[in-house]
Amino acid sequence: MNPNTPCIVGIGQTEYTRWGGATRSEFELAGAAIMAAAADAGVAVRDIDALTSFGDDRNEPALVQAALGIEELRFNGMVWGGGGGGSCGAVDLAAAAVEAGRARYAVAFRSLAQGQTGRFGLYDPNWRHASFIHPFGLLAAPQLLALSVRRYMHEFGVTPEHLGAFAVACRAHAQRNPAAVMRGKPLDMATYLASRMIADPLRLNDCCLETDGACAVLVTTLERARDLDVEPIAILASIHGGSRGWSTGPLGSHNQPLADYASTGAWTLARDLYAKAGVAPGDLDVAQIYDNFTGLALMSMEAFGLCGRGEGGALAASGAIAWPHGALPVNTHGGCLSEAYIHGLNHVNEGVRQLRGASTCQVEDAELCLVVGGPGPSPTSALILGRV
Amino acid sequence: MNPNTPCIVGIGQTEYTRWGGATRSEFELAGAAIMAAAADAGVAVRDIDALTSFGDDRNEPALVQAALGIEELRFNGMVWGGGGGGSCGAVDLAAAAVEAGRARYAVAFRSLAQGQTGRFGLYDPNWRHASFIHPFGLLAAPQLLALSVRRYMHEFGVTPEHLGAFAVACRAHAQRNPAAVMRGKPLDMATYLASRMIADPLRLNDCCLETDGACAVLVTTLERARDLDVEPIAILASIHGGSRGWSTGPLGSHNQPLADYASTGAWTLARDLYAKAGVAPGDLDVAQIYDNFTGLALMSMEAFGLCGRGEGGALAASGAIAWPHGALPVNTHGGCLSEAYIHGLNHVNEGVRQLRGASTCQVEDAELCLVVGGPGPSPTSALILGRV
Repeated sequence: MNPNTPCIVGIGQTEYTRWGGATRSEFELAGAAIMAAAADAGVAVRDIDALTSFGDDRNEPALVQAALGIEELRFNGMVWGGGGGGSCGAVDLAAAAVEAGRARYAVAFRSLAQGQTGRFGLYDPNWRHASFIHPFGLLAAPQLLALSVRRYMHEFGVTPEHLGAFAVACRAHAQRNPAAVMRGKPLDMATYLASRMIADPLRLNDCCLETDGACAVLVTTLERARDLDVEPIAILASIHGGSRGWSTGPLGSHNQPLADYASTGAWTLARDLYAKAGVAPGDLDVAQIYDNFTGLALMSMEAFGLCGRGEGGALAASGAIAWPHGALPVNTHGGCLSEAYIHGLNHVNEGVRQLRGASTCQVEDAELCLVVGGPGPSPTSALILGRV
Repeated sequence: MNPNTPCIVGIGQTEYTRWGGATRSEFELAGAAIMAAAADAGVAVRDIDALTSFGDDRNEPALVQAALGIEELRFNGMVWGGGGGGSCGAVDLAAAAVEAGRARYAVAFRSLAQGQTGRFGLYDPNWRHASFIHPFGLLAAPQLLALSVRRYMHEFGVTPEHLGAFAVACRAHAQRNPAAVMRGKPLDMATYLASRMIADPLRLNDCCLETDGACAVLVTTLERARDLDVEPIAILASIHGGSRGWSTGPLGSHNQPLADYASTGAWTLARDLYAKAGVAPGDLDVAQIYDNFTGLALMSMEAFGLCGRGEGGALAASGAIAWPHGALPVNTHGGCLSEAYIHGLNHVNEGVRQLRGASTCQVEDAELCLVVGGPGPSPTSALILGRV
């Protein structure tokens, strides 16, 4: 393997709590997650020299640097445009920083305590295109994305039970994960179907959690990783971006052509991702898929080749995504639906745990993990992680 | 030269007008500048596949993509933290994107029509640290930075005439630049000294302009540049970042230790910049220095080795920075003080023009140009550009 290959050598996270449950500020949570990632890697916090994030991150690198005693920052970048879902894009920026020699130890992070500040994507009458969508009652993310999901269900015969199968699988995985906010609150299909409608066809349990917490991922080159006392997890390929029509927050999601209900360029980028990694979807052992809403996660599974187009619901219902017996367990931590909503950076942490053999829903001998941030109302981003 | 060396192959800009003078929206200006850069390079707009910017850019890549018909975005990043001054950081992100194989044609852009939206850095009582500085009357950028400049003048015997020499040189250069907002409005030292005090020691003519306009810079690898009908300008080195204490907008500038009045890590990063480029300050033919305020520009000249510490004022007063007779002309377009305030991305465009032999204050046979964004209340960023 090329010694310049970017590798994840540390992951960190804080406790996850329900919205408003954090006992520290969002900024402190960011610092705590970064420190945890550095400790995990055995890298001194002061030696971190790049910080990356995504989608309007509020924790500015200069303040993080000052708070943590980081000596020199040599790269800081935020994937901008869109909100959640750019998680793997932040990791991609960090990877590009170390690959291009801009930094040695790059940390991608996300901290969210939205009750302390403001929620991303909340209704705002000042949005640029507000007049085109707000009069129709499309104010919040579930309302906006309900339309895409409804169209998707109509086109492909996807049923509520299909959506529910995804939610139920995530919840089951969360029961084994001590960090999961929904641990101890199992979900069965009957309860799912009986849960209240938020924005038809999205029920309460189709929607991600609202939580407080932070995650961080430390990236360096394979060459430097070999000097650390840690098993490096290679980023075999990383992408972010999208075709015309990927959107910028809840407002943009309806710029997408209907025929491309979930594309946001994911189909093209997925092809390139696998080509770069030299991997096919059939080679994967496990996948972590951004799940702001069940329907979008089903679409992502299709775009990233885990099944054919329109078959995401059937795949979920088949049990294939459920640990331990499914052929390709998905969201083995519980996802944004049942672990925590750290805008998908928690999915990257879980991907690393799987390849370290340290997940609470461990896939035996997992060698390759797909992590997807988006698609959804954000740039598509994704990683293929592999054992070195 | 390594075929993977990032090169600037296109520059674009719109008309520059005084604040409120734009006849198009800020978003349209962004698109116009990007199209101009693509046309300059002979690259089809649809083939641009990365967009970068800095400091809270309001023109989101997905919307720019849709407006311009860009097929696929594969990288988008914003240098975050701080406002103006990150210009070369945006170019550094674009360079890293092409060096690391993430994109083929990366465009760094900045569009500003602040009267249409909001001014960056305006007083806001909700700033995180407002209570620590606002009660002392430190509300706007000139007030905040006046303290640094006063300390600098005190420490090193810098005089108002020293500050004025920088402003006068920029204004003289602008007289030859048809794009400059201050063309036709020459400035002499007597007028400078008589101009009204904004925040002691900063007079009106120590402060950058308030203008509308946009710039864009198209970056690709040298290998790809050779397929274009354009003389590539190599980015021999690019940096952004800073030591502890670089700040985040007007609020942060007083996190700096006083002894480091202007450092924001610039001294360290400058050393690394020259080392990476294999160039010494004495090799430079011309320099474009971010000039939000004269005093900060003098400090930058010191940090980037154009003179010794505390000698920036004397350097300006010596005539060394004035075209055509100075040994190292600075801001040959007029700078932010006299061309336009595009947060310093216009300095990158001028650097490219100098190396193409196309400046209106052309330095004969210019081979090497330093471009600095910051230091100031922002991440330091800088480029060394060279002819191939």
